[in-house]
Amino acid sequence: MSEYLPGLAGVPATQSNISDIDGEKGILFYRGYPIEQLAEKSTFEETTLLLLDGELPTAQALDDFDQRIRQNRKTQFHIRDLMKTFPPSGHPMDMLQTSVASLGMFYPGNECLTGADACGDLDYIHNMSVKIIARMPTMVAMWEYLRHGYEAPEPRNDLSYAENFLYMFTGKEPDPLMSRIMDVCLILHAEHTINASTFSLLVTASTLASPYNVIAAAIGTLSGPLHGGANQKVLEMLEEIGSPEKAEAYIDKKLANKEKIWGMGHREYKTKDPRAKFLENLVDKVLESKGTNQSSLLETAKEVERICEDRLAHKGVYPNVDFYSGTLYHEMGIPADQFTAIFAVARSAGWLAHWREQLGDNRIFRPTQVYAGEPERPYVPIELRK
Amino acid sequence: MSEYLPGLAGVPATQSNISDIDGEKGILFYRGYPIEQLAEKSTFEETTLLLLDGELPTAQALDDFDQRIRQNRKTQFHIRDLMKTFPPSGHPMDMLQTSVASLGMFYPGNECLTGADACGDLDYIHNMSVKIIARMPTMVAMWEYLRHGYEAPEPRNDLSYAENFLYMFTGKEPDPLMSRIMDVCLILHAEHTINASTFSLLVTASTLASPYNVIAAAIGTLSGPLHGGANQKVLEMLEEIGSPEKAEAYIDKKLANKEKIWGMGHREYKTKDPRAKFLENLVDKVLESKGTNQSSLLETAKEVERICEDRLAHKGVYPNVDFYSGTLYHEMGIPADQFTAIFAVARSAGWLAHWREQLGDNRIFRPTQVYAGEPERPYVPIELRK
Repeated sequence: MSEYLPGLAGVPATQSNISDIDGEKGILFYRGYPIEQLAEKSTFEETTLLLLDGELPTAQALDDFDQRIRQNRKTQFHIRDLMKTFPPSGHPMDMLQTSVASLGMFYPGNECLTGADACGDLDYIHNMSVKIIARMPTMVAMWEYLRHGYEAPEPRNDLSYAENFLYMFTGKEPDPLMSRIMDVCLILHAEHTINASTFSLLVTASTLASPYNVIAAAIGTLSGPLHGGANQKVLEMLEEIGSPEKAEAYIDKKLANKEKIWGMGHREYKTKDPRAKFLENLVDKVLESKGTNQSSLLETAKEVERICEDRLAHKGVYPNVDFYSGTLYHEMGIPADQFTAIFAVARSAGWLAHWREQLGDNRIFRPTQVYAGEPERPYVPIELRK
Repeated sequence: MSEYLPGLAGVPATQSNISDIDGEKGILFYRGYPIEQLAEKSTFEETTLLLLDGELPTAQALDDFDQRIRQNRKTQFHIRDLMKTFPPSGHPMDMLQTSVASLGMFYPGNECLTGADACGDLDYIHNMSVKIIARMPTMVAMWEYLRHGYEAPEPRNDLSYAENFLYMFTGKEPDPLMSRIMDVCLILHAEHTINASTFSLLVTASTLASPYNVIAAAIGTLSGPLHGGANQKVLEMLEEIGSPEKAEAYIDKKLANKEKIWGMGHREYKTKDPRAKFLENLVDKVLESKGTNQSSLLETAKEVERICEDRLAHKGVYPNVDFYSGTLYHEMGIPADQFTAIFAVARSAGWLAHWREQLGDNRIFRPTQVYAGEPERPYVPIELRK
């Protein structure tokens, strides 16, 4: 038996063609393309199809895919009725895990194959990927209305993915710059090798569960504060610090108590996460569009980064993707508890690419354990126990 | 980097004190106690507390635990209202993943901690385990009524766990023999080392997601036909075969086509699963209580086992737990699509024991991958693509 490594750190758990990380240089590749090039030149729709199919699409293939996404944005009114039973305080990640898990009931049959019927049927797999990627933002935006007691706007099929999401979320005609910024955020969050949620997706998918059960499992994993939930935690931390001059004392106290600094450090990077650099620059663009270059939150974030670099860089601890995404979304007017749900919308692209890859060469995940418990012993009747 | 082993077969992914398998001899131990002794002498309540705490409880501790389980059987009427939005055709496993995922919204705050607040707080962990284990059968039984358009009976606190489940499920005063058989079924399904659903639970738990998100992920994994979903598949297969004399041709055709024989084989056992032996005997007891020793389904199952033993025993393929549980539940009058949900009710005990163990020494699961995709390449503008 091989050595037991907690958290399977350094243990290969899949063979994959989807993405790759150069942790020393701080480069993330989707299907061989550096993330910076995709963030500058691609769209979320194109990047999604690249992740799913493996190649940048032709104009015709991209248009077909885009049309299919647009046509699948609407959900049955049953999903809205379901969501109306949720309490207004319901966290968007709980809402999303619940709503996605329910889809197999509302769309049974051909939309919800399990077992051998699903494996190897590429049309089915592609069709399900389209439907889930199209419906995720609809559910997230709907909840933003329903939890405040209002009916949500219907999705529009004359808008791009990012535009429609912002339109549904805010109820306003989407601003071109904000739409492009959201588009870039979605690209940057779409995929990241075999992280915890993608790994849990592979394990769930390997039992040939339905894609809704599989994505719901991954959403649950992403919700944790050591994973996707960290972007909400970063914002809460920055708000707790309050202003740049209070950052040093706050961080040093945290470090002295061996507490976690949210948004700092990543097992795969020994330098600043390439996505963090991009997101930091986008904050400036949002501020500029609002006619200011001042943001106490951004200044606080930069000061936290400076202090952490001073204290932690020798350990290879630098800002990760969650560090600036919260600040960015906040400046875009998005409530903090929705950050992780938007992460999930973007990540659905990578998750479904991994789902397809797993079904293409499936073996159920059943690792072993190091048993460290009691050796065999006989049952003791209750009256003889102490 | 260590060798890549698909499905992590043979790779230790956790250190655990909860259960152990002797695959050569066909013995399963919970906390050192052979499963046969627990099935003969223990109750599901006692076995659950053994799994959670590590030791057989004193009479006082068991009584306290039992009382707390009884007091937590009722769910808010909001859960019923949520379930009423599900279509009657909704599969019980989809219902269960959805309903459990929703609980964090209906019971927020102290019932739904995430992150460091949960780790190390044994009272919280134990309290959540009680609540989830108490509520799971309530939700499964409720759905049996609601999907037929009837209000479900309220849980009763004057009955044992198995008695109350049968009472709620059937609406009738539970028969002592049937209650004991259900009790034994729950004991036999409560835990099984690091199988796929328990493994996915560990991955989800390692991000410090809430226990509801974590259990919902595990339910999704269990639903797959290569895992818990197999017990429904076994019954469907036996019904498709129709009678013992048709078994041989059916099995040989499946084997010739390299198709799966449901309920046969297990990565951990090289002999008949000890749980299968027990369940097979329980079918006889159920038949006896119905005043017969005839069951075409049981005869078909035994014939399938005989043929598979002849054809597959040299490969170490024998009946597993799912092979006889379906026949047993069917003879008890339980609909086939509820089998896996009953499995989930029982397994909640083992899942929550593993959740506690993971939080006690947590490291996020982030394995590596073997990247086999494209090397670095530059973005190609859409007009230049072929």
